Amino acid sequence: MTIKLNLNSDLGESFGAWEMAGDDAMLRTVNSANVACGYHAGDPLVMIKTVTRARENGVSIGAHPSFPDLQGFGRRRMDIPAPELEAMLIYQIGALDACARAQGTRVTHVKPHGALSNIASADRKVADAVARAVHRLDPSLILLAPAASQMALAGQALGLTIVEEIFADRAYLDDGNLVPRSQPGAMVHGAEASLAHVMRMVEERALISITGKRIPVNPQSICVHGDNEEAVAVAEAIRDGLRRAGYSLVTIPELL
Amino acid sequence: MTIKLNLNSDLGESFGAWEMAGDDAMLRTVNSANVACGYHAGDPLVMIKTVTRARENGVSIGAHPSFPDLQGFGRRRMDIPAPELEAMLIYQIGALDACARAQGTRVTHVKPHGALSNIASADRKVADAVARAVHRLDPSLILLAPAASQMALAGQALGLTIVEEIFADRAYLDDGNLVPRSQPGAMVHGAEASLAHVMRMVEERALISITGKRIPVNPQSICVHGDNEEAVAVAEAIRDGLRRAGYSLVTIPELL
Amino acid sequence: MTIKLNLNSDLGESFGAWEMAGDDAMLRTVNSANVACGYHAGDPLVMIKTVTRARENGVSIGAHPSFPDLQGFGRRRMDIPAPELEAMLIYQIGALDACARAQGTRVTHVKPHGALSNIASADRKVADAVARAVHRLDPSLILLAPAASQMALAGQALGLTIVEEIFADRAYLDDGNLVPRSQPGAMVHGAEASLAHVMRMVEERALISITGKRIPVNPQSICVHGDNEEAVAVAEAIRDGLRRAGYSLVTIPELL
Amino acid sequence: MTIKLNLNSDLGESFGAWEMAGDDAMLRTVNSANVACGYHAGDPLVMIKTVTRARENGVSIGAHPSFPDLQGFGRRRMDIPAPELEAMLIYQIGALDACARAQGTRVTHVKPHGALSNIASADRKVADAVARAVHRLDPSLILLAPAASQMALAGQALGLTIVEEIFADRAYLDDGNLVPRSQPGAMVHGAEASLAHVMRMVEERALISITGKRIPVNPQSICVHGDNEEAVAVAEAIRDGLRRAGYSLVTIPELL
Repeated sequence: MTIKLNLNSDLGESFGAWEMAGDDAMLRTVNSANVACGYHAGDPLVMIKTVTRARENGVSIGAHPSFPDLQGFGRRRMDIPAPELEAMLIYQIGALDACARAQGTRVTHVKPHGALSNIASADRKVADAVARAVHRLDPSLILLAPAASQMALAGQALGLTIVEEIFADRAYLDDGNLVPRSQPGAMVHGAEASLAHVMRMVEERALISITGKRIPVNPQSICVHGDNEEAVAVAEAIRDGLRRAGYSLVTIPELL
Repeated sequence: MTIKLNLNSDLGESFGAWEMAGDDAMLRTVNSANVACGYHAGDPLVMIKTVTRARENGVSIGAHPSFPDLQGFGRRRMDIPAPELEAMLIYQIGALDACARAQGTRVTHVKPHGALSNIASADRKVADAVARAVHRLDPSLILLAPAASQMALAGQALGLTIVEEIFADRAYLDDGNLVPRSQPGAMVHGAEASLAHVMRMVEERALISITGKRIPVNPQSICVHGDNEEAVAVAEAIRDGLRRAGYSLVTIPELL
Repeated sequence: MTIKLNLNSDLGESFGAWEMAGDDAMLRTVNSANVACGYHAGDPLVMIKTVTRARENGVSIGAHPSFPDLQGFGRRRMDIPAPELEAMLIYQIGALDACARAQGTRVTHVKPHGALSNIASADRKVADAVARAVHRLDPSLILLAPAASQMALAGQALGLTIVEEIFADRAYLDDGNLVPRSQPGAMVHGAEASLAHVMRMVEERALISITGKRIPVNPQSICVHGDNEEAVAVAEAIRDGLRRAGYSLVTIPELL
Repeated sequence: MTIKLNLNSDLGESFGAWEMAGDDAMLRTVNSANVACGYHAGDPLVMIKTVTRARENGVSIGAHPSFPDLQGFGRRRMDIPAPELEAMLIYQIGALDACARAQGTRVTHVKPHGALSNIASADRKVADAVARAVHRLDPSLILLAPAASQMALAGQALGLTIVEEIFADRAYLDDGNLVPRSQPGAMVHGAEASLAHVMRMVEERALISITGKRIPVNPQSICVHGDNEEAVAVAEAIRDGLRRAGYSLVTIPELL
């Protein structure tokens, strides 16, 4: 039996007159798109366009909600009380789902962005707020969460369907968190190293930390970035490498 | 057979730390709420709260989308190309619908706010964009449009269900548009005059202009405002007067 | 020789259609206004109006800059790198100073708002960024900082003129920080208790903590709040009590 | 005697994570920069950086204020009452001036952006609001206005120093307004045609319309755009061509 995997990428991160390039190439490469919802990037017109192109490319659509911080691209930690955070997530997912419905499709997964994702991966209270927001809006939505994260645990506790993701270009700490970008060795560079990094984690069904520690997980989705030409080449190399190794690359709903 | 009418009001117009008062009293008085969607007022937390209270009071929920203009409360004309305007409307309606779904209910109608409403009432191109946005998102959504407006015509042309509204506190020009607030006689003041204004239009099934001209319409919904104590008293007087006259007051979906 | 003191209050916190009331009464009561600069409250029109009324009342004008967070009223912690935070402060102070210049006056002091103030009072790195921003823009600007705070120390280190403020309605911890609003005993209620609280700290030239501990400071300015009728009455009682006790109430520049 | 001219360009139009490229090349080419103030583009950090680089290149600094419309890049018409528009302009100019002061320099001119510029060029009431805002803030600020525009007339009426600009890449109508971008022939393409267009207007001291009509003006400043590589090449060709023709290229304050 062929083992199914998924490639996902953060897309639709243009805003108004400002373009964040590379979406078209990535939409031909990945299986699922995490689409910005207007809080860190994206505006309604960008959202409609991104959803339309995703649909044309057979790419499934996820909401990529964020803290409200356009100027900081959602990368700044903010302390937002849980009820307000839940409301903000419901708002963003719903706005994107409406864009999808207007184009004859739907949002099928949710993946928090940036600082929100980092906090919700490590802090169970924030993770619970994220899971609750998704569950309140639609318990059939899939939560795409970092493997071995509090977010994955919080989603499971509420009965959400969880898909665990690993990062092709990021190294891991022994506790399963990402090595912060400010530290040496945080990034995995180049197509060859990224493919090897992914392949090992997929085959061993474990995160492999920067010291070699194994943390058993079920890595069904691989996050690739596409904000420059080299990144697209890396994504293509991972796609091709996984296919050569016999994996079947499918959308997030098709994983299940 | 009892004739059905509807009372609607613009609600959920607080934002962050700033409260726009009167919602609770109005939710006990009207049958349908037009809820701000974050572009001229409202934030996700306010939206969730407003939807929750509307549901508790048996008040049906409509989206009240606007131009993106918090600072100007959506009262400033903006020139926005039709495809972007449509995307903005889909975004806002979807965001509010998600808030409603999270509370076990749904958005059942759409009513544009402020400057957008004024322009879409008079300019067929903008009216078409509004109607298209609603139709693209969900053709079963009801468009609550000013009686005798371009917006009502645009909605009919696309096959949307239209409910025509009249304003309890505003005088009409001979062409069916509202007397601009900057002109004398624009406002109808006090409970008695407002009730008489409404009653005459409902009974004659016509707008009655400031010069006495009759424009035949089908006024099924009456818009009342509630941003101060007197306004609430006026709304209650209209509700009570209509009931005494034998009308049945129902939500917008129940009109059909 | 009469001892000089100053009463300051946070004003100009309306935004667009939303009014935060009480400014007019407070402008007749205090000597210096901390005016919102558009990041947590205030918009250009509100800023011009507030500056104009302050000038008419002989009230000196301070900038009250914040994190960029209208929806959260600047009360949410945000992690902003020092160079960007400095730029945001320079932007806000300059915007308000221009409003003042257009009305024939100037900004003479700076007092951070909300979460920014709380963090800069306890975290020396953020305090340094605040002090650097003020110093880079104009080293003659006065920094109005909580007594015994890191912000006061950071300002002194750069050679800024510091005026130390105490809070009429807030209790202190043994380390000189405010008792968080979430804890019992955080607030001092009523005119009599507030005046006694202020009078004791002014006379003993010390913060008096909730356990009775004395922390020597030089309290030259007293912060009073005015967002409701009772608050205005408290402010007036403090003003009258200090005058009866022989203190002279002056603007912040007149303290020096 | 050498005749002085000025080259100006709109710069600092990045925002947060989004870069609008080309600033560095343009800062080596032009004499004056119109710097975005956060309403259509620019954020405090971008503003500080742009001002710093302008100063290093001997480029004088102007404020480039806009309608509040990040999503629309200030290109959408908005109806804003004159007192609020004036306040918005004072706010923006002051914010940029503070960034300049923090870097040891000052804003010396003002040039409205986008839709605001278009409206203020044709509508005297809006032109008067622009001129009043500049005059209220600092009557020594220079207004950089399109030649033969209502904005230039409004500034003169208030006693402001006016510098009239012509556009290197835009064709003119017979009434002196720009041919709208939506019409054929609106743009002048390529270095050779642009230089010829500029040279003829400078030498004849007149706008030359698309039909060949001459409108006498005093063109002291030439606006060049630099948002792509070809644009930078055009700007360099105009600079070199004007120098070869014996003109001296200076900053806006040096024109006087």
